[in-house]
Amino acid sequence: MALTGVLRPGYVQIRVMEMEPALRHYRDLVGLNVVSTESDGRVYLKTFDEFDRHSIILREADEPGMDFMGFKVDSTETLHMFKQKIEDYGISTETIAAGDQPGLGERVRFVAPTGHNFELYADIEASDNGPMTENPDIWEKPPHGMSPVRFDHCLLYGGDIDGAEDLFTKVLGFRVTEVAKAEDGEMRIAIFLSCSTKAHDIALVRHDEDNKFHHCSFMLEDWNAIGHAADIMSRYDISVDIGPTRHGITRGQTIYFWDPSGNRNEVFAGGYDSYPDHPVRVWSADQTGKAIFYYEKAINETFLSVVT
Amino acid sequence: MALTGVLRPGYVQIRVMEMEPALRHYRDLVGLNVVSTESDGRVYLKTFDEFDRHSIILREADEPGMDFMGFKVDSTETLHMFKQKIEDYGISTETIAAGDQPGLGERVRFVAPTGHNFELYADIEASDNGPMTENPDIWEKPPHGMSPVRFDHCLLYGGDIDGAEDLFTKVLGFRVTEVAKAEDGEMRIAIFLSCSTKAHDIALVRHDEDNKFHHCSFMLEDWNAIGHAADIMSRYDISVDIGPTRHGITRGQTIYFWDPSGNRNEVFAGGYDSYPDHPVRVWSADQTGKAIFYYEKAINETFLSVVT
Amino acid sequence: MALTGVLRPGYVQIRVMEMEPALRHYRDLVGLNVVSTESDGRVYLKTFDEFDRHSIILREADEPGMDFMGFKVDSTETLHMFKQKIEDYGISTETIAAGDQPGLGERVRFVAPTGHNFELYADIEASDNGPMTENPDIWEKPPHGMSPVRFDHCLLYGGDIDGAEDLFTKVLGFRVTEVAKAEDGEMRIAIFLSCSTKAHDIALVRHDEDNKFHHCSFMLEDWNAIGHAADIMSRYDISVDIGPTRHGITRGQTIYFWDPSGNRNEVFAGGYDSYPDHPVRVWSADQTGKAIFYYEKAINETFLSVVT
Amino acid sequence: MALTGVLRPGYVQIRVMEMEPALRHYRDLVGLNVVSTESDGRVYLKTFDEFDRHSIILREADEPGMDFMGFKVDSTETLHMFKQKIEDYGISTETIAAGDQPGLGERVRFVAPTGHNFELYADIEASDNGPMTENPDIWEKPPHGMSPVRFDHCLLYGGDIDGAEDLFTKVLGFRVTEVAKAEDGEMRIAIFLSCSTKAHDIALVRHDEDNKFHHCSFMLEDWNAIGHAADIMSRYDISVDIGPTRHGITRGQTIYFWDPSGNRNEVFAGGYDSYPDHPVRVWSADQTGKAIFYYEKAINETFLSVVT
Repeated sequence: MALTGVLRPGYVQIRVMEMEPALRHYRDLVGLNVVSTESDGRVYLKTFDEFDRHSIILREADEPGMDFMGFKVDSTETLHMFKQKIEDYGISTETIAAGDQPGLGERVRFVAPTGHNFELYADIEASDNGPMTENPDIWEKPPHGMSPVRFDHCLLYGGDIDGAEDLFTKVLGFRVTEVAKAEDGEMRIAIFLSCSTKAHDIALVRHDEDNKFHHCSFMLEDWNAIGHAADIMSRYDISVDIGPTRHGITRGQTIYFWDPSGNRNEVFAGGYDSYPDHPVRVWSADQTGKAIFYYEKAINETFLSVVT
Repeated sequence: MALTGVLRPGYVQIRVMEMEPALRHYRDLVGLNVVSTESDGRVYLKTFDEFDRHSIILREADEPGMDFMGFKVDSTETLHMFKQKIEDYGISTETIAAGDQPGLGERVRFVAPTGHNFELYADIEASDNGPMTENPDIWEKPPHGMSPVRFDHCLLYGGDIDGAEDLFTKVLGFRVTEVAKAEDGEMRIAIFLSCSTKAHDIALVRHDEDNKFHHCSFMLEDWNAIGHAADIMSRYDISVDIGPTRHGITRGQTIYFWDPSGNRNEVFAGGYDSYPDHPVRVWSADQTGKAIFYYEKAINETFLSVVT
Repeated sequence: MALTGVLRPGYVQIRVMEMEPALRHYRDLVGLNVVSTESDGRVYLKTFDEFDRHSIILREADEPGMDFMGFKVDSTETLHMFKQKIEDYGISTETIAAGDQPGLGERVRFVAPTGHNFELYADIEASDNGPMTENPDIWEKPPHGMSPVRFDHCLLYGGDIDGAEDLFTKVLGFRVTEVAKAEDGEMRIAIFLSCSTKAHDIALVRHDEDNKFHHCSFMLEDWNAIGHAADIMSRYDISVDIGPTRHGITRGQTIYFWDPSGNRNEVFAGGYDSYPDHPVRVWSADQTGKAIFYYEKAINETFLSVVT
Repeated sequence: MALTGVLRPGYVQIRVMEMEPALRHYRDLVGLNVVSTESDGRVYLKTFDEFDRHSIILREADEPGMDFMGFKVDSTETLHMFKQKIEDYGISTETIAAGDQPGLGERVRFVAPTGHNFELYADIEASDNGPMTENPDIWEKPPHGMSPVRFDHCLLYGGDIDGAEDLFTKVLGFRVTEVAKAEDGEMRIAIFLSCSTKAHDIALVRHDEDNKFHHCSFMLEDWNAIGHAADIMSRYDISVDIGPTRHGITRGQTIYFWDPSGNRNEVFAGGYDSYPDHPVRVWSADQTGKAIFYYEKAINETFLSVVT
């Protein structure tokens, strides 16, 4: 009852070409806090407002992109239930023992029809730097940088997004909140999926190559914070894709920008809350521009072409 | 899976002494849209952004207060399941047939240990003035007045709030997000309960009289909207209780004010999202002031004494 | 002493191709109030927060553009002094008698070296719909549309902007606040001039054709109002040039958009206050993009090419 | 022509009981930058956005209060002219040689009819940490604390505010923007004076003791910054007098709070720009509450009684 099953996107592991510029970006400018640097070089980070140990993992690699995205589920029983359901659905899973990653309990990994690696997990250590809980102040120290509240969602590109939608809705309990349709009025070119009351916990765009990473998104407080983030980007020469603007889909106010390795990030704020009884919002092909960028009413050339 | 059971507060019926001043308040100044005026004099209203037919019902009566608060559940099966569970719990229920209220399906009514009347329902007509769903604009017409996004929650006063907590958590699937404790460090003087990822869908304060109404709350977009609401209140001589300020509990930015009949309203924005795996935030008795009004760090004299 | 001489931009007369769509734009969407429609068809408008009778004049014509821009001076003596100084400077002036335009006193008209028509005046009727002055509320009725606070400035294109700078600074008491320079590090391609503590009361860009109108600008309250204006533009299909973004020059947060006749408007907010003892800010040619659009760091193709 | 004579409030010297807590307050929490600590113990500070060397001077003393407030004038000639005019008016002046205070040129000091010490000066060193001027970013480093833009004005209490008004308007070129009147409809209990287009550069309240300091005010960017300042105050246990709220007079959005020595500070944002041709806004005695605190419509008990 209430919110059960998959709770939320919990972490994403991003490949970066060089760690130092990546840290300047994610730590100093985006404004994450470093949790730990592990012996294999991976750096774990989180926002000031997340209870769990970490949400962003940076791994140095030869090319950018996303290694995997993890969803937290409500219990170990649910984790095992999902493992069985995924297997029953015909997708193989791998169980990774607790402790393989710092602070993380048992994980169930699988590859979605779009080629992306996902993980489910129920247990992660609590951060010793999370929100206060006894007579809590709204924050212990003022947030810095773009003041991200949380790692919020990813937008991923791949071929079989219908298959992924089927998996996420039938097996994992997500529901579709918005779709953008192709010229034929049937084929979906973009699907937005929620496991909560968020307008999206994950989004998928049809693409001719699998396992591609469009962006990971950080939620900011409001439109004012979006403006402040834009100021930081310009001052510190962060490469901006587009924004400040608004999405028609989800109504989110947004900026897309790139980390030094070419991975796209988003900061966003606002948008609506979505409940399971709400109708699906649908965009026809002639309105795709407005769907993606509500103010420009046109897709910029990078949106469909630049992924990592 | 995902959000099931009780979805959200759906409506509240408020008693007003005279309908015309009440409409000036709720329609013209708060900024609700009138859905219908029925032959028995009741007026049904909603925000611009709600999908369901109505959320606020005004009934002319000799004294102010709340008649009942309704929660929408995910399905008729769930409705019947809850009816059985409530009965099994030892609280009698009444089933009200579909059509008794305009646009509403079958309802299950019961009285909580605090003396308040609650209703559960699964079906309500969709508004013909709700958010757009095909190539949707963010709104069809600009919102007016204080531009409320939704009816969000109620704070209710009564004696047996422990009993109500027990009912809401064990039977209805809510969970506690924050509590304010008495001097003894044990007794709860205020309990905040969520059935979603909101910091509260209902809140309860211990009081020596049952079935009392502290306020119903409307969610605004952000702190800027709170400021605009304050401007409207001052310009049109709405009686303000306190604010603009912030709650420590929920972190919400807020104004309390009164409708012409003396019912307290709230407009609020911001605050955190709460997940079932998050720890309960706890306030000790010496910090109650900060818990309720984070900036003032003191409870104003009306908070505990003025209810309807 | 204090602020004397030229006080501020007072009005601008804009040519529109058809009055009805123009009124829908300026009155309903931008959010001006109509003051009067005169027998010659001209429509006079103002913002909710201006004391003077009108600030925007719309005239139906065969092509868009600006007829003239008027500056209010502090007294009739000053008006006559300026007339003499302009004549002494070698530019002829025309005195237009009081009453030629509704509510306006005597005006002194002249043509600047860039070919634009300017007027000076000391007297204009007070609006009967201006800000309250006895126990004033912040507004009498909530502002509508984009809620412009005032007509703020114009950006004009012409050949001899050095000549215009000389006239405005040596004769009319303006001072330069910012300049953008050409590749040679000397020639000015854009000049921003203030007669007050605003970062600009008028701006000039070097152009191969004289007497061209780039935009008239309306000041909004803040970045939040800029976002709301963007929502209105998208909802009502106003053609947007660029924004929401920020200027490097003046730091103003801004949207450029077109009225139905192709005249460019701006809504802006923020930026710094400029005092006479402040240094001039200077932009080198390689930073022109950032100077104009701080977030994009590039001039869009319309900025230099589309004027009316 | 344009803005001449007195340009603006330039600095204020405040007495604090202990320097360390004062620095934690003004430097770390309000968010000023320390310019220098002199051998006599005085600490000089400024905001990130001021061009001049310093604006706030803290001096350790046995009791709180204001030593003097300085106004910058446009030139040495003007300084000398004002010295003569003040003497001619019948108030004696003292000339303090350049270099007496760090970075400051010649100063003219006098005592106003309310008993306050004022200084005029034309020259002060430029800060080496002021706003950028060549291809300027909006700030070089992100502002910290409450992110004050500038020292803006002071509100002072004394007996002969009519005499001070006479001096400021007839000799120093200020003008009255708003007045609050006593029950008799004649006597002024509060006067707001501008030497620019600000709604107030200095304000005076009638009081039975001379030379009293009500508050010095820091301008913030907007209402959002006011909210952030309130968060900082609550988090770091700054004693708050009132706010966030709005003034009826000037329309400014505001918080009053105390430094550790009991001097009142204000952070404010918004409000209108005032021009010399604008009418004076007048508040009658029965609306004094709304004049001072627009949302509360009542003066809090400290407003009239607590000064330093």
